[in-house]
Amino acid sequence: MEYKVEHIGIAVKSFEKSIPLFEKLFNTTCYKTESVDAEGVNTAFFLNNQSKIELLESQSPGGVIDKFIEKRGEGMHHIAFEVADIYAEMQRIKNEGFTLLNEHPKEGADNKLVCFVHPKDTNGVLIELCQAKK
Amino acid sequence: MEYKVEHIGIAVKSFEKSIPLFEKLFNTTCYKTESVDAEGVNTAFFLNNQSKIELLESQSPGGVIDKFIEKRGEGMHHIAFEVADIYAEMQRIKNEGFTLLNEHPKEGADNKLVCFVHPKDTNGVLIELCQAKK
Repeated sequence: MEYKVEHIGIAVKSFEKSIPLFEKLFNTTCYKTESVDAEGVNTAFFLNNQSKIELLESQSPGGVIDKFIEKRGEGMHHIAFEVADIYAEMQRIKNEGFTLLNEHPKEGADNKLVCFVHPKDTNGVLIELCQAKK
Repeated sequence: MEYKVEHIGIAVKSFEKSIPLFEKLFNTTCYKTESVDAEGVNTAFFLNNQSKIELLESQSPGGVIDKFIEKRGEGMHHIAFEVADIYAEMQRIKNEGFTLLNEHPKEGADNKLVCFVHPKDTNGVLIELCQAKK
Protein backbone atom coordinates (compact mmCIF):
# COMPACT_ATOMS: atom_id res chain seq x y z
CA MET A 1 0.00 0.00 0.00
CA GLU A 2 1.71 3.19 -1.14
CA TYR A 3 1.64 6.37 0.89
CA LYS A 4 0.72 9.51 -0.99
CA VAL A 5 0.75 12.98 0.56
CA GLU A 6 -2.86 14.13 0.54
CA HIS A 7 -2.25 17.48 2.19
CA ILE A 8 0.00 19.39 4.56
CA GLY A 9 -1.61 21.07 7.56
CA ILE A 10 -0.39 24.46 8.77
CA ALA A 11 -1.43 25.92 12.14
CA VAL A 12 -2.24 29.63 12.03
CA LYS A 13 -3.59 32.12 14.53
CA SER A 14 -6.12 33.73 12.25
CA PHE A 15 -7.50 33.12 8.78
CA GLU A 16 -8.10 36.84 8.42
CA LYS A 17 -4.34 37.37 8.22
CA SER A 18 -3.19 34.03 6.86
CA ILE A 19 -5.57 33.35 3.98
CA PRO A 20 -4.49 36.50 2.09
CA LEU A 21 -0.86 35.73 2.97
CA PHE A 22 -0.91 32.25 1.42
CA GLU A 23 -2.94 33.50 -1.52
CA LYS A 24 -0.12 35.93 -2.24
CA LEU A 25 2.58 33.31 -1.68
CA PHE A 26 0.97 30.69 -3.90
CA ASN A 27 -0.45 33.20 -6.36
CA THR A 28 -3.81 31.47 -6.17
CA THR A 29 -7.05 31.65 -4.20
CA CYS A 30 -8.28 29.68 -1.23
CA TYR A 31 -10.78 27.36 -2.91
CA LYS A 32 -12.65 26.13 0.16
CA THR A 33 -13.14 26.73 3.87
CA GLU A 34 -14.77 24.18 6.11
CA SER A 35 -15.48 23.92 9.82
CA VAL A 36 -14.77 20.69 11.68
CA ASP A 37 -16.82 21.38 14.78
CA ALA A 38 -16.00 18.08 16.52
CA GLU A 39 -12.33 19.14 16.55
CA GLY A 40 -13.00 22.82 17.16
CA VAL A 41 -11.07 23.87 14.06
CA ASN A 42 -11.70 25.80 10.90
CA THR A 43 -9.88 24.70 7.75
CA ALA A 44 -8.96 26.57 4.57
CA PHE A 45 -7.67 24.80 1.47
CA PHE A 46 -5.26 25.80 -1.31
CA LEU A 47 -3.72 24.20 -4.42
CA ASN A 48 -6.34 21.57 -5.03
CA ASN A 49 -5.01 20.45 -8.39
CA GLN A 50 -1.52 19.55 -7.34
CA SER A 51 -0.87 19.32 -3.64
CA LYS A 52 -3.29 20.47 -1.03
CA ILE A 53 -2.32 22.85 1.73
CA GLU A 54 -4.72 23.08 4.68
CA LEU A 55 -4.60 26.02 7.07
CA LEU A 56 -6.00 25.31 10.52
CA GLU A 57 -7.24 27.84 13.06
CA SER A 58 -8.96 27.32 16.41
CA GLN A 59 -12.67 28.03 16.45
CA SER A 60 -12.33 29.45 19.96
CA PRO A 61 -9.45 30.50 22.22
CA GLY A 62 -7.64 27.59 23.89
CA GLY A 63 -8.55 25.02 21.21
CA VAL A 64 -6.19 22.33 20.00
CA ILE A 65 -4.59 24.56 17.36
CA ASP A 66 -4.09 27.42 19.81
CA LYS A 67 -2.38 24.98 22.17
CA PHE A 68 -0.07 23.82 19.39
CA ILE A 69 0.81 27.44 18.53
CA GLU A 70 1.48 28.32 22.18
CA LYS A 71 3.95 25.45 22.36
CA ARG A 72 5.62 25.56 18.96
CA GLY A 73 4.51 28.74 17.24
CA GLU A 74 2.64 29.01 13.98
CA GLY A 75 3.84 26.64 11.28
CA MET A 76 3.67 23.12 9.93
CA HIS A 77 1.24 21.03 11.96
CA HIS A 78 0.81 17.66 10.23
CA ILE A 79 1.32 15.64 7.06
CA ALA A 80 -1.68 13.70 5.81
CA PHE A 81 -1.14 10.58 3.73
CA GLU A 82 -3.90 9.06 1.69
CA VAL A 83 -4.16 5.31 2.02
CA ALA A 84 -6.41 2.89 0.16
CA ASP A 85 -7.67 1.07 3.28
CA ILE A 86 -7.38 3.09 6.48
CA TYR A 87 -8.51 0.18 8.70
CA ALA A 88 -5.81 -2.16 7.35
CA GLU A 89 -3.18 0.56 7.54
CA MET A 90 -4.08 1.48 11.14
CA GLN A 91 -3.68 -2.17 12.07
CA ARG A 92 -0.37 -2.51 10.23
CA ILE A 93 1.31 0.48 11.83
CA LYS A 94 -0.09 -0.44 15.24
CA ASN A 95 1.53 -3.85 14.81
CA GLU A 96 4.78 -2.03 13.95
CA GLY A 97 4.65 -0.38 17.37
CA PHE A 98 3.34 3.09 16.47
CA THR A 99 0.76 4.69 18.76
CA LEU A 100 -2.55 5.72 17.22
CA LEU A 101 -4.22 8.82 18.63
CA ASN A 102 -7.64 7.42 17.82
CA GLU A 103 -8.49 3.74 17.86
CA HIS A 104 -11.24 4.16 15.28
CA PRO A 105 -11.20 6.36 12.18
CA LYS A 106 -12.97 9.66 12.77
CA GLU A 107 -14.54 12.21 10.47
CA GLY A 108 -12.13 14.84 9.17
CA ALA A 109 -12.48 17.80 6.83
CA ASP A 110 -12.97 17.31 3.12
CA ASN A 111 -15.16 14.18 3.39
CA LYS A 112 -12.45 11.95 4.83
CA LEU A 113 -12.01 9.27 7.46
CA VAL A 114 -8.87 10.11 9.41
CA CYS A 115 -6.55 8.70 12.04
CA PHE A 116 -3.57 10.40 13.67
CA VAL A 117 -0.31 8.76 14.75
CA HIS A 118 1.36 10.00 17.93
CA PRO A 119 4.33 12.24 17.06
CA LYS A 120 6.41 10.74 19.88
CA ASP A 121 6.86 7.66 17.69
CA THR A 122 7.47 9.50 14.43
CA ASN A 123 10.32 11.91 15.13
CA GLY A 124 7.98 14.68 16.20
CA VAL A 125 5.95 14.63 12.98
CA LEU A 126 2.19 14.45 13.43
CA ILE A 127 1.09 11.97 10.76
CA GLU A 128 -2.51 11.73 9.57
CA LEU A 129 -3.78 8.75 7.64
CA CYS A 130 -6.83 9.51 5.55
CA GLN A 131 -9.18 7.84 3.18
CA ALA A 132 -11.98 9.37 1.15
CA LYS A 133 -15.40 8.36 2.47
CA LYS A 134 -17.33 6.22 0.03
CA MET B 1 2.59 29.31 -12.38
CA GLU B 2 1.20 26.53 -10.22
CA TYR B 3 2.88 25.42 -7.03
CA LYS B 4 3.35 21.68 -6.63
CA VAL B 5 4.76 20.09 -3.49
CA GLU B 6 8.07 18.50 -4.52
CA HIS B 7 8.98 17.18 -1.09
CA ILE B 8 8.57 17.70 2.64
CA GLY B 9 11.73 18.03 4.72
CA ILE B 10 11.92 16.50 8.21
CA ALA B 11 14.73 17.34 10.65
CA VAL B 12 16.07 14.32 12.54
CA LYS B 13 18.92 13.78 14.97
CA SER B 14 20.27 10.65 13.39
CA PHE B 15 19.66 8.65 10.24
CA GLU B 16 20.71 5.52 12.10
CA LYS B 17 17.53 5.71 14.14
CA SER B 18 15.22 7.57 11.76
CA ILE B 19 15.72 5.80 8.44
CA PRO B 20 14.51 2.45 9.83
CA LEU B 21 11.68 4.27 11.62
CA PHE B 22 10.31 5.90 8.46
CA GLU B 23 10.84 2.69 6.48
CA LYS B 24 8.55 0.95 8.98
CA LEU B 25 6.04 3.79 8.97
CA PHE B 26 5.80 4.06 5.18
CA ASN B 27 6.30 0.33 4.61
CA THR B 28 8.94 1.10 1.98
CA THR B 29 12.70 1.59 1.73
CA CYS B 30 14.81 4.73 1.66
CA TYR B 31 15.69 4.92 -2.03
CA LYS B 32 18.53 7.44 -1.88
CA THR B 33 20.86 9.25 0.51
CA GLU B 34 22.86 12.26 -0.55
CA SER B 35 25.22 14.68 1.17
CA VAL B 36 24.88 18.41 0.60
CA ASP B 37 28.27 19.47 1.90
CA ALA B 38 27.78 23.20 1.26
CA GLU B 39 24.86 23.13 3.73
CA GLY B 40 26.45 20.64 6.10
CA VAL B 41 23.49 18.26 5.82
CA ASN B 42 22.85 14.68 4.83
CA THR B 43 19.58 13.86 3.12
CA ALA B 44 17.60 10.61 2.85
CA PHE B 45 14.65 10.21 0.49
CA PHE B 46 11.46 8.15 0.62
CA LEU B 47 8.33 7.66 -1.54
CA ASN B 48 9.76 8.75 -4.85
CA ASN B 49 6.78 7.68 -6.93
CA GLN B 50 4.16 9.73 -5.17
CA SER B 51 5.32 12.36 -2.76
CA LYS B 52 8.89 12.69 -1.66
CA ILE B 53 9.85 12.87 2.00
CA GLU B 54 13.37 14.10 2.75
CA LEU B 55 14.99 13.43 6.12
CA LEU B 56 17.72 15.90 7.07
CA GLU B 57 20.49 15.37 9.61
CA SER B 58 23.48 17.56 10.46
CA GLN B 59 26.80 16.34 9.14
CA SER B 60 28.48 17.56 12.31
CA PRO B 61 27.32 18.77 15.74
CA GLY B 62 26.03 22.35 15.77
CA GLY B 63 25.02 22.40 12.10
CA VAL B 64 21.90 24.10 10.81
CA ILE B 65 19.68 21.06 11.39
CA ASP B 66 20.98 20.57 14.93
CA LYS B 67 20.20 24.21 15.65
CA PHE B 68 16.68 23.76 14.34
CA ILE B 69 16.19 20.68 16.55
CA GLU B 70 17.55 22.45 19.63
CA LYS B 71 14.98 25.19 19.11
CA ARG B 72 11.92 23.27 17.94
CA GLY B 73 12.66 19.58 18.39
CA GLU B 74 12.74 16.96 15.67
CA GLY B 75 9.96 17.25 13.14
CA MET B 76 8.78 19.01 10.02
CA HIS B 77 11.41 21.39 8.74
CA HIS B 78 10.30 22.75 5.35
CA ILE B 79 7.94 22.34 2.40
CA ALA B 80 9.52 22.42 -1.05
CA PHE B 81 7.44 23.54 -4.01
CA GLU B 82 8.51 22.83 -7.54
CA VAL B 83 8.17 25.82 -9.86
CA ALA B 84 8.74 26.02 -13.60
CA ASP B 85 10.97 29.11 -13.48
CA ILE B 86 12.67 29.69 -10.14
CA TYR B 87 14.14 33.06 -11.19
CA ALA B 88 10.74 34.46 -12.19
CA GLU B 89 9.12 33.07 -9.07
CA MET B 90 11.78 34.48 -6.75
CA GLN B 91 11.20 37.88 -8.32
CA ARG B 92 7.42 37.59 -8.03
CA ILE B 93 7.35 36.70 -4.35
CA LYS B 94 10.01 39.28 -3.55
CA ASN B 95 7.77 41.87 -5.20
CA GLU B 96 4.94 40.58 -2.99
CA GLY B 97 7.03 41.49 0.07
CA PHE B 98 8.37 38.08 1.08
CA THR B 99 12.00 37.84 2.22
CA LEU B 100 14.26 35.45 0.33
CA LEU B 101 16.97 33.72 2.35
CA ASN B 102 19.23 33.59 -0.69
CA GLU B 103 19.26 36.21 -3.42
CA HIS B 104 20.43 33.73 -6.05
CA PRO B 105 19.33 30.12 -6.48
CA LYS B 106 21.76 27.68 -4.91
CA GLU B 107 22.45 24.00 -5.45
CA GLY B 108 20.30 21.68 -3.35
CA ALA B 109 20.02 17.91 -3.06
CA ASP B 110 18.54 15.85 -5.85
CA ASN B 111 19.94 17.94 -8.72
CA LYS B 112 17.90 21.05 -7.96
CA LEU B 113 18.26 24.79 -7.87
CA VAL B 114 16.71 26.01 -4.64
CA CYS B 115 15.74 29.18 -2.83
CA PHE B 116 14.30 29.51 0.68
CA VAL B 117 11.74 32.04 1.86
CA HIS B 118 12.10 33.45 5.38
CA PRO B 119 9.57 31.79 7.71
CA LYS B 120 8.88 35.10 9.48
CA ASP B 121 6.85 36.11 6.40
CA THR B 122 5.09 32.78 5.92
CA ASN B 123 3.46 31.99 9.26
CA GLY B 124 6.51 30.14 10.52
CA VAL B 125 6.67 27.73 7.57
CA LEU B 126 10.06 27.43 5.90
CA ILE B 127 9.23 27.38 2.18
CA GLU B 128 11.68 26.11 -0.42
CA LEU B 129 11.23 26.88 -4.09
CA CYS B 130 12.98 24.40 -6.34
CA GLN B 131 13.50 23.70 -9.98
CA ALA B 132 15.22 20.70 -11.59
CA LYS B 133 18.57 21.66 -13.10
CA LYS B 134 18.60 21.36 -16.85
